[in-house]
Amino acid sequence: MKKNVSDTLQALHNGDILTLSRLISYAENNDSYVDKVLAKVSYQSDKARVIGITGSPGAGKSTLVDKLAVVLSQKGEKVAVLAVDPSSPFTGGAILGDRIRMVRATENKDIFLRSMASRGALGGLAHAVLKAVRLLHAAGFNVVLVETVGVGQAEVDIVRCADTCLVVLVPGMGDSVQAIKAGILEIADIFVVNKSDREGADSLERDLIMLLGLVEYDEKDWRVPIVKTIASEGEGVSKLVEKISLHQAWLLKSEFARVRKTRVIQDAILQFASQALLEKLVEKKNKKIQKLVQLCIDKKTDPISAAKDLLK
Amino acid sequence: MKKNVSDTLQALHNGDILTLSRLISYAENNDSYVDKVLAKVSYQSDKARVIGITGSPGAGKSTLVDKLAVVLSQKGEKVAVLAVDPSSPFTGGAILGDRIRMVRATENKDIFLRSMASRGALGGLAHAVLKAVRLLHAAGFNVVLVETVGVGQAEVDIVRCADTCLVVLVPGMGDSVQAIKAGILEIADIFVVNKSDREGADSLERDLIMLLGLVEYDEKDWRVPIVKTIASEGEGVSKLVEKISLHQAWLLKSEFARVRKTRVIQDAILQFASQALLEKLVEKKNKKIQKLVQLCIDKKTDPISAAKDLLK
Repeated sequence: MKKNVSDTLQALHNGDILTLSRLISYAENNDSYVDKVLAKVSYQSDKARVIGITGSPGAGKSTLVDKLAVVLSQKGEKVAVLAVDPSSPFTGGAILGDRIRMVRATENKDIFLRSMASRGALGGLAHAVLKAVRLLHAAGFNVVLVETVGVGQAEVDIVRCADTCLVVLVPGMGDSVQAIKAGILEIADIFVVNKSDREGADSLERDLIMLLGLVEYDEKDWRVPIVKTIASEGEGVSKLVEKISLHQAWLLKSEFARVRKTRVIQDAILQFASQALLEKLVEKKNKKIQKLVQLCIDKKTDPISAAKDLLK
Repeated sequence: MKKNVSDTLQALHNGDILTLSRLISYAENNDSYVDKVLAKVSYQSDKARVIGITGSPGAGKSTLVDKLAVVLSQKGEKVAVLAVDPSSPFTGGAILGDRIRMVRATENKDIFLRSMASRGALGGLAHAVLKAVRLLHAAGFNVVLVETVGVGQAEVDIVRCADTCLVVLVPGMGDSVQAIKAGILEIADIFVVNKSDREGADSLERDLIMLLGLVEYDEKDWRVPIVKTIASEGEGVSKLVEKISLHQAWLLKSEFARVRKTRVIQDAILQFASQALLEKLVEKKNKKIQKLVQLCIDKKTDPISAAKDLLK
């Protein structure tokens, strides 16, 4: 690929897969060339959609995402899948997983699939993913499925930026714990109970209904549905696609959604900013922080005074 | 009061109530004199304890705290109560509430009671409260009960710095919602179901047991108990005092508690620091933030790029 921004842009906008792939690699490597390209990309933002899929390992997300991608593709969407694994280094499981799934993906040549794993800082991966999404949109993939393993903060950071967020749970794994702990309840637009032929599916659904019942909704707010699927057999996938469409129609027409979106994005920006500021602080002043913690434990200062002291 | 640090210190350490009261007022007014005094106060930190009490308005916290204070005082503790109302300005309900409760408090002259309400920034109040706690300890009050109205972030910030945190709920008010939303579940050391003679008490208890059942405990971790009380009749208060003693004994002997305490305090310091940094950022760069949010909505940038842009 020639490093010429306008040539690269044209190739990208023409949907050239080689250019796209290399640009995503640049994003992973934090190469600033990709930022030059991103500064100039264009696409119809109201047609470009991101669907985030998260859930604990073993929930069958990959299978579900593959089936989703195929159904969406059959409906005429140009679909790309980003499979993100923050816990795997490149030399680990991700490559293997990628190979297996590449075989799957070749069944449908219209679907672009790419796996991204941890390289350096976790925040770095999240950023690479967000850039990759924009590159995919620019290359004409209007629907990007971002699948993350796990339900930790890193995954939440990645999928909270999606237009629609699916949280995939399976029976018998104590998933509702995870749902509460990682704040997943707040980011889920749709809950999926996968492997719903397993024992415990009904009880998991009941738990979710109860949890959702505890949330106070504004009447104009989106009501989070629960969809039962057996992804390996394709069961429930069209129902899921239907709920996704409903959610995305709601996003487009609702003033409430617009206001919420604005708040979600502002929160995300500020949270990333404060994370970056804190990381610098912890790196630069770790010894001081440890001292201040001890002073607080000994009740010789208090956490707010300590924070002020830290920022001096 | 003479503004002479060593005289003030001596009066404070002698337990002079007038000096103590004025110093708390200084803390409220963000007068730096109090910091000079605090820099030199001394007390036995292992004997100085803070019990935080939070819960929604109408949960009967004031009554419960009064009864708790009396029982603890009868057991020989020197007890102080700080009643914090972040939502009331000084001219509002707080003064009235204070008067009513002052009548109550005079029943027992050994108990120091002070109400603190919002004056200026919310973070300012939290800081004033943390300083007041240290002043009370220095004046010989080994047990400080910090009672906050509401279960918002400000209240959580205040009580998370307590050694033992009670969350007070009442039947029939959809309290478990609040518990999840404000992250109260994570800070509660003891749940109190007050007004437990009301309809719905058993169902609230069941909800709590279920919620607590969803949390993954380390076997060395404290198991959060649920205590039923009818504070107005003093019922369940001795049981509650017993659970508080058990928790505080656990805090002193458990290595696990020490490690957790260190983490809680470090988190608190870093959170207050990042809050302060963010407030500055929002104040200084509000227009830029709004612009960046719009760019994200239009998918012309992403939240992490926007955050980096903001910090430039």
